[in-house]
Amino acid sequence: MNVRFTDTTLRDAHQSLLATRLSTEELVKVSSLIDDVGYNSVEMWGGATFDVSVRYLGEDPWERLDRIREQFKKTKIQMLLRGQNLLGYRHYADDVVELFVKKVADHGMDIVRVFDALNDFRNLEKASREIKKHKMHLQVAISYTTSPVHNVEYFAKLAKKAYEELSADSLCIKDMAGLLTPGEAKRLVENIKKNCPLPLQIHAHFTTGLADLTYLAAAEAGAEIVDTAISALAYGTSQPAAESLWVSFNSLGYASKPDLKLLKSISDYFLSVRERHVDHDVSLLTIKPEVLTNQIPGGMYSNMISQLKSQKALNKLEEVLREVPRVREDLGYPPLVTPTSQIVGVQAVLNVIIGERYKVITNETEKYVLGYYGVPPAPINPELKKRIESKGKKTITGRAADYIPPEVSASKEKFKTIAQSDEDLLTLLLLGEVGRKYLVSKYEKDLGIDFSLASDFSDTTIVYPV
Amino acid sequence: MNVRFTDTTLRDAHQSLLATRLSTEELVKVSSLIDDVGYNSVEMWGGATFDVSVRYLGEDPWERLDRIREQFKKTKIQMLLRGQNLLGYRHYADDVVELFVKKVADHGMDIVRVFDALNDFRNLEKASREIKKHKMHLQVAISYTTSPVHNVEYFAKLAKKAYEELSADSLCIKDMAGLLTPGEAKRLVENIKKNCPLPLQIHAHFTTGLADLTYLAAAEAGAEIVDTAISALAYGTSQPAAESLWVSFNSLGYASKPDLKLLKSISDYFLSVRERHVDHDVSLLTIKPEVLTNQIPGGMYSNMISQLKSQKALNKLEEVLREVPRVREDLGYPPLVTPTSQIVGVQAVLNVIIGERYKVITNETEKYVLGYYGVPPAPINPELKKRIESKGKKTITGRAADYIPPEVSASKEKFKTIAQSDEDLLTLLLLGEVGRKYLVSKYEKDLGIDFSLASDFSDTTIVYPV
Repeated sequence: MNVRFTDTTLRDAHQSLLATRLSTEELVKVSSLIDDVGYNSVEMWGGATFDVSVRYLGEDPWERLDRIREQFKKTKIQMLLRGQNLLGYRHYADDVVELFVKKVADHGMDIVRVFDALNDFRNLEKASREIKKHKMHLQVAISYTTSPVHNVEYFAKLAKKAYEELSADSLCIKDMAGLLTPGEAKRLVENIKKNCPLPLQIHAHFTTGLADLTYLAAAEAGAEIVDTAISALAYGTSQPAAESLWVSFNSLGYASKPDLKLLKSISDYFLSVRERHVDHDVSLLTIKPEVLTNQIPGGMYSNMISQLKSQKALNKLEEVLREVPRVREDLGYPPLVTPTSQIVGVQAVLNVIIGERYKVITNETEKYVLGYYGVPPAPINPELKKRIESKGKKTITGRAADYIPPEVSASKEKFKTIAQSDEDLLTLLLLGEVGRKYLVSKYEKDLGIDFSLASDFSDTTIVYPV
Repeated sequence: MNVRFTDTTLRDAHQSLLATRLSTEELVKVSSLIDDVGYNSVEMWGGATFDVSVRYLGEDPWERLDRIREQFKKTKIQMLLRGQNLLGYRHYADDVVELFVKKVADHGMDIVRVFDALNDFRNLEKASREIKKHKMHLQVAISYTTSPVHNVEYFAKLAKKAYEELSADSLCIKDMAGLLTPGEAKRLVENIKKNCPLPLQIHAHFTTGLADLTYLAAAEAGAEIVDTAISALAYGTSQPAAESLWVSFNSLGYASKPDLKLLKSISDYFLSVRERHVDHDVSLLTIKPEVLTNQIPGGMYSNMISQLKSQKALNKLEEVLREVPRVREDLGYPPLVTPTSQIVGVQAVLNVIIGERYKVITNETEKYVLGYYGVPPAPINPELKKRIESKGKKTITGRAADYIPPEVSASKEKFKTIAQSDEDLLTLLLLGEVGRKYLVSKYEKDLGIDFSLASDFSDTTIVYPV
């Protein structure tokens, strides 16, 4: 057995612990050190980094990709992509997916991990095909959750499908809330391995204190790669530490010997970086075992808190925490991850604040119920469905993206003044008004262009990462 | 396999994270809830709690024992005892050990875990015999460390000896710095189990991120009990969390199902208690992998920092961290735990501050080198030994306590005014001037006694727990 490690420090670790606030400069500086560690791959783009770069840091995410890419001579770089959702908050037309994946390939990405919140693989078809077409490594991630309809057989079937229908190069179990127990991981890996010959990677968050134990059990059952972060940005709602996992696996004969001196210099660097971002630090001193029951991942929790605060209703938090699993049940037990975590969270808060369940239904809940996010794992509460359909709206049954007309050429024309490149256009399409503002300020400064007449976007009601 | 859990929350967890500052009241309030969990035992006395109660909280440790004892109707209570060292900072005469253990039994202790920093079992003989005599459960703990002379065979021999010579009822591997890897734990447990039929318990600190993985590997190799803390006071330099270990072991069929609701109410309680003690909180957001190399446990580190600060020499910290392993080597690779951690730490700081190694040698280093703490694992640096012996001092080879004349009757006579009971006398003998001050203030207040003529103590140069 030779287990290998993927480093998430440049993406998921700071997304989980520091509200994704690390800058390109902070990441580039240490990249060549990380390149020497001997990681299987380094996750350094995608997820919330695209949005936060533009929204809060005023940085071009494409430039970040280029600059980090340059530093990795030996180690494969990797990104996280939300299928038809890309790195935005709605489903995009196929031609947007096409353009986006092409640009990702142009900028030198090696591995793309794609997932869909509902595990509706129709939402991964287009992206997967494009990833393969551009000769990148396609890793299909299965969103892990627990519910009356989620079990080992359910996930094993998805794994087989990822191999057979999406032609994945490897597979990932994505456990965003830390719900996967060591025992279940063992059974899951054994089951998957029966019908799916792909290399299997485990991605888990330490939120509940299970992740490292789960990695060990999964590795012993045959998983080949596990996701870790450098200790300075590990644990809490992040991944477990590379150092401890590597030392442990090595002691059991499951992995090579880690270079602890090199890892220490990387960790020391990130300890000092972390100090600079103390205002955004989640600062978790321990785990949250209650997530095993309420399933609420870290980002969703803080979004609900800020929503409640803005409504001066923080005293209703306990009620909201009880409402979340009920809304999740009504919606057919979606795994809670972007965007379903936002849809469920916002609706749960509304149900509590207004004092009557589903008196107000968000646009996103409506679209979700009508099938525009895909097919949920279990049937939707029939009453809720009837209520929405009674407004004359119809549930779709086909692939969600088939209902979205092409977007690229029309947008190109519409935004030709501010979108100087395909990358700019994608920033606009994915981030709307936030993207526009960023490009305006960038080009006004850089090129002296006046954008006062440029088109306007308005944000949806979705709560963005904080 | 049915692994069981010992809860350290009332002793080691807050000793590790909150400088042992939780009060009797804070512990008693939640004890009856803890009693319902189904723990194998609850560690709630001994270690630094005796000293800190008296020194900083102005509380009688014997009263704490009584009040917590009362609350546990179903669960065995447990303490940590430093062999001939008891809960003080030097070796005591056998009659003090006799009296102390008798009093511990009188106050209703169920299990006594004894250990010696050097694993010199002659330092455990007297305490062990007395524990058995008073029908308490004798658990012998082996201090774990790594060095050129420490290996699986070394520890397995000690285990056999604990069973055969000390008649231990159970065995514990005590890994105070988190150095035991899962692989080494597996080999260690397998080896111990070959020649020692005793139930085996693992006690480890999460400092390096290994402890939970080590527990899993140890349990799979046959260890029966592991030490955990409630999540609110887990991780960092404390034990890993009960909730995550219990859920994990249960998922693998290794343990019963935990009552997560009950554990949550206990954890919620300690979260709010922890907030009150924020000034003493070590507030570790992650692990310290460097401890795998420098072996410095949490308490030793903070002691060295305060020693350096008081000398206005904090800038020499890096140098001191390099000096510690050299002093440890000179002293024959003692495991670093009270009192050896203090002896090595103070000497290392002096060596650096003075700028010449062993120009000044502390009384404790001298006593250590002359054999008054027992036989070190490896020979002492001959030059250092010669230097100390050249002052006309002689190394002893017998059992250290044999060189200490009886202390009880003389002390009883000497302190008859302030020691109203055997418990008071023990407080005086173990804590010296600190104990005297406490008793004076207690009895002046309670009984209106004037102690102005009572005997005086002076503290040794040993750095006490902060």
